[in-house]
Formats: sequence, structure tokens, C-alpha cells
Amino acid sequence: MQSFAVSYTAARTLAAGAVEAPPPGPGEVEIAPAYVGICGTDLHIFHGDMDARVTTPAVLGHEMSGRILRVGAGVEGRRVGDPVTVMPLRWDGTCPACRAGHRHVCQNLDFIGIDSPGAMQRRWVVPADTLVPLPADLPLDVAALVEPTAVAVHDVARAGLEAGERAVVVGGGPVGLLIALVARTTGADVRVVELSTGRRRIAQELGLTTWDPAADDVSELVEQWTGGAGADVAFEVSGAAAGVSTAVDVLAVRGRLCQVAIHAKPREVNLHRFFWRELTLVGARLYDRGDFERAVALIADGSIPARALISRVVPLAEAPAAFEALEAGGDVMKILLDCSEDDDDAAGGAA
Amino acid sequence: MQSFAVSYTAARTLAAGAVEAPPPGPGEVEIAPAYVGICGTDLHIFHGDMDARVTTPAVLGHEMSGRILRVGAGVEGRRVGDPVTVMPLRWDGTCPACRAGHRHVCQNLDFIGIDSPGAMQRRWVVPADTLVPLPADLPLDVAALVEPTAVAVHDVARAGLEAGERAVVVGGGPVGLLIALVARTTGADVRVVELSTGRRRIAQELGLTTWDPAADDVSELVEQWTGGAGADVAFEVSGAAAGVSTAVDVLAVRGRLCQVAIHAKPREVNLHRFFWRELTLVGARLYDRGDFERAVALIADGSIPARALISRVVPLAEAPAAFEALEAGGDVMKILLDCSEDDDDAAGGAA
Repeated sequence: MQSFAVSYTAARTLAAGAVEAPPPGPGEVEIAPAYVGICGTDLHIFHGDMDARVTTPAVLGHEMSGRILRVGAGVEGRRVGDPVTVMPLRWDGTCPACRAGHRHVCQNLDFIGIDSPGAMQRRWVVPADTLVPLPADLPLDVAALVEPTAVAVHDVARAGLEAGERAVVVGGGPVGLLIALVARTTGADVRVVELSTGRRRIAQELGLTTWDPAADDVSELVEQWTGGAGADVAFEVSGAAAGVSTAVDVLAVRGRLCQVAIHAKPREVNLHRFFWRELTLVGARLYDRGDFERAVALIADGSIPARALISRVVPLAEAPAAFEALEAGGDVMKILLDCSEDDDDAAGGAA
Repeated sequence: MQSFAVSYTAARTLAAGAVEAPPPGPGEVEIAPAYVGICGTDLHIFHGDMDARVTTPAVLGHEMSGRILRVGAGVEGRRVGDPVTVMPLRWDGTCPACRAGHRHVCQNLDFIGIDSPGAMQRRWVVPADTLVPLPADLPLDVAALVEPTAVAVHDVARAGLEAGERAVVVGGGPVGLLIALVARTTGADVRVVELSTGRRRIAQELGLTTWDPAADDVSELVEQWTGGAGADVAFEVSGAAAGVSTAVDVLAVRGRLCQVAIHAKPREVNLHRFFWRELTLVGARLYDRGDFERAVALIADGSIPARALISRVVPLAEAPAAFEALEAGGDVMKILLDCSEDDDDAAGGAA
């Protein structure tokens, strides 16, 4: 059987076309992806920044929703037609990190959609134990945001954020806003620091208070906001050197900085302030099943208005143009690829 | 009444001579310091690096032991002759950090011996609530190491070090070795990374395993030592840029880096590794009363062989030469000033 897939082949090049679709093996499930989100990591790959890690051609995509198409031998409790998302992690179970109970950051982790084929295709085979069931009444477009929401749930938990605390989110892209929204559900008071006017407007429409670091003295605003204490928690989601400085500068004595963004190169960090205020920095990378299930629940009950982050939905075959649009920036937030349309099979070709 | 004191007056200049000694006021106690240790911070002041903070002339000294000479009005439970040390912190009790329960890192902290007169004198008046009683049979020279040991106790607690864990201490000066010794008392397996041959030898004499970062591939040694896992905890006590890199590089998934040393300028930190391995960095600055009491107990019961860290004991009046000797480095560890000799009063003069 054949599938239709979008594959990364070389820097700035995506190929859309037919690929082989073998049936699910024992313990596997074949899914028909409904919607697949384009993530910042997918953009990094598109730029060619991760060529050392990615084996081409690589089918990208790890933020998704879909329905089960076929169930492999030995898989129990999963039925054709079930709405699902996928926690795209395969750990080896034997490395020191796994043995210490940290399987989600296995030292030999296979991140599905980066290290092995992802969801930007019509038929996708994954291990059955990666499936996370979705409520029947949860729209599948919104459900494609479960994965980045699970990231946010994990980040908020890593920061130990509690009700009544004050948190600054540095960087108001999709993950930053999801962190802000999850933080708000915990009962924390949240501010979002974001350079882009368009992204600040989206945040404001979600009821979030925003600051523009180009116009506002963020440290001074935090002083006023917190009565001179500083923020309890900061999330560094910008990936920029200045974002790191801001996140460190706003923290109260014993404040916690959750490092979410990927910094490809070392950053200058004011370690004296870590010493002086006894600050904590926690790195946060992925999620575990509990984070995923919590993300499903928060989206399903409306606590996280995920639909507001969907800027547009385009057919899978138009992925190349969507990557270009995201790269151009502006106020685009999350673009979903609609994998369900039938007429894409004929629309293939290389971007 | 007059005292005899060693005062910092300007960069690289200490004055030794008579100073006024007012009697203890209400709530205060006058102590006769017996021994005062010279700390790295005292050296920073001596270099002139802290002139923006220190008001001259400044009597230095915050690592000490002594006996109560006079007791001010309203002080209960303290008697003349009692052996004591001092936790040299005065908090305002009203700042946000104090209100949040973190008085030891009060935002307006008076660190006695830096921000107000210290122990390098014959008669020293301090608030009675800074006193920490010493066991009657604890030699006062050894007791002068309670304060840096309290730092080490605090650092080990901040790192959350547990029995059976593996810890790397980067930097084998007095505080680094005290951290290693306290870590060992928790049941952790410890390695000390230190450039100085002399300091490594002292560590080895204390039964500690040492590595020379100039000759050994520390990351590779940690891989072998931990079966590829990495260390659970690293303590950065070197104050050097390379020490920060080493401390980050040796950590296991979910490892914790305790930042102890003072880094006057920002350091490049591999934040990607914090993200990738979900590492934690905790800043550690001072201590609280519990840390001090635990330090007294560990020294008193012999768990911490503090005497081994005392390189030499010199009369108070010879403080200027002692500062010079410490600055010259080599294998000198801790120098104590003996404040108890009577013939120093005539030996004053500026260094």
C-alpha cells in the first residue's frame, strides 16, 4: 500500500509525494493523521541546522491528531477509528537515564518525527504504546495541539509553579503562550514578554498581560508588579541571549528559571545572581505520559483555548509553502497541515 | 575601652592598631575572638575588588571562634566565658525575601565582617542572636572552621545530595574540600577536581579521590566511574570559566549543579545540555542556623576533620603577611589569625 508524505530531503527542501506504507507489525498501529502541526524543531530541520542528526529523506511531524486505521498483532485495547494522538518517544529502557526512571530523556531516545518517520503523511505506523486516546468529542484540529501543550504542562511542573505565584514567560510563540495558559490554570499570575506586536495581540486576546521588551523596562515593571520581590518563576522560551538575561534579571530570591528554548550555542549567564539570590535553573525538554494526559484534559475541558493558537490550516501537500510562511515570521502562530483531503495525492512534487 | 584590630583601608593595605571598643548595648554581646580564619571573600576585599560595597576602614573577619567577654542588657542564656561562634548575618526581617522565609538572603542583608565590623580584633560586639554555642571540649582553633563548614552543609543540602549518589566537586580549596567532606558524610561517593598539586595532596590525605583537570580527561573519567550515566551532582567551587564547563559536562540526566563560587562576570553556560538532560542549577550563597548547628556537630564528632585544613596559625598582628601568603597561592589552605596573644598591641602599623 502507498501513502503520501512530506519529506525533508536537504536544507530548505521538502518533497511531497508517494511513499511505501508497510502494514503495522506486531505491537504497532497504523494511524491516519488528521492534522499535523509544524513545530519550531521542524523549522530548525528545514533550515538544515539538524542535518547531523536527521537521516534524509525524513518524514517530519510530531504534533498530531488522527484515527486508527489498522491494528497490528498483539495490540489490545485499540480499535480502528479511535481518535488518538501520539507521544512521539521511544526509549531503550536500558540506558542509565531509563534505569533511573527518566525514560522520557533516555540517552538513546528515538524522537519520532525527527529520528524516525513522523506524521506528515497519510498513513503512519507507530508503536501502540505511544498512543494517547482522545475524547470522542474533541475536534481533531484542536487535538493536534496536545503535544505542545504537554510540553507546557511539563515545563510548568518542572518549575514547581504554584497557585498565587507570579511567573514571567519570556517569548510569546506557541509554546510560550501555552506555558502562560497552563500557568494561569494553576492559579499563578502571569506576564508574557514578547517582541512581536502580532504575537502580543494574540496573547492579549487570550486574556494575558503582555510586555514589549523593546519599549518596556521589564525589570522595573516586575519590581512594581511584585512589590520589589521579583517573580517566583521565569520561563525562557525565546531562545535569544537577551531572553536569558531577562529571565534571570526578573527573579526573586529563590526564584526558579525554567529553561525551555533550545540554545544551540552557550549563553552568557549571570551566575553571580544565581549565587546572590540562590536562584534555581531547571532544564525542561519533553514530557511523560502524565503530562500528555493532563494536556488532553486541559484542552478538552476548555481550560486551554488551543484553537486560538491555530493561525491557519492548509492541505498536507502545501507544507512547503507553510514552512516558508512560518519562516517569514510575523504574527503567524501555529499552522496545521490537514492530512485528510483526498486530492493531495496528485499534487505532489518537490518544493 | 580599647581593642586591637586589623582593618582594610585601601586596596592591598591593612592597618593593624588600636580602635575604640564601646561596651555591648542592649541585646548585644562582646566577644573575645580566639581564632579568625581568612576567607576568599576577605582576599577579594584586600584586592580592592569590593570597594564599592565596603566602607573603610573595615575590620574584616567572619570565620571565628571565641569566648563571651561581656553581656549587654536584656540578653538571656549567655554567660561570660561561654565558647561561641557567630553566624554573621543580620537581616531586616521586612524585605520580600525575609517575608518569604529566606532571611539568610535578605535583600538588605548586613553581612558582618564585610558590611559591618568583623572579628579580626580583640573585642567584638555582635547581636546576641548571632551567637552559636560551641561544645566546651571543642578546640577553638578547629571551631574557627564552623562558618565555612556551614557553607558546605548548606551547599550539600541545596544540591539535595543523598546517600549512594555520586558527586564531583570542581575546585579543591577550603570550601571545596569541606563540601567534599560533608558530601562524604551523607554517604555519597565523591571526586575532587583540582589543578593544584598541593591541594590535591591535602585532599588525598583526607581520603578523597582527586583528579587533575590539566592531566585527566574528567568527562571520560566520570563516564567510566558512573557506567556512562554521569554524576548525580556537581559543585562548582572553582570560580573559573573552565570549572563551570566541567561541572555541566559531568552531569547525568536530571543531574544537579550547585553553584557555590562567586563569578564576578557572566559565564558562558551550555544551556543546551541543561535542556537536553533536564539538568538543574541551584545557587547557594550562605547558610541558616540549622546549617551552622549541623556544622558544629560534624566538626565536634570528628566527621569533618577540620584541623587538617589549617595550614598555619599566626598572630593577629601578622594578618598583613598572612593575606600576602594566601594571595601567593601554592598549597596553603586555611590560615587562622590567633587573636589571643597579649603582645600584639605593641606591634601595630600599616602593611
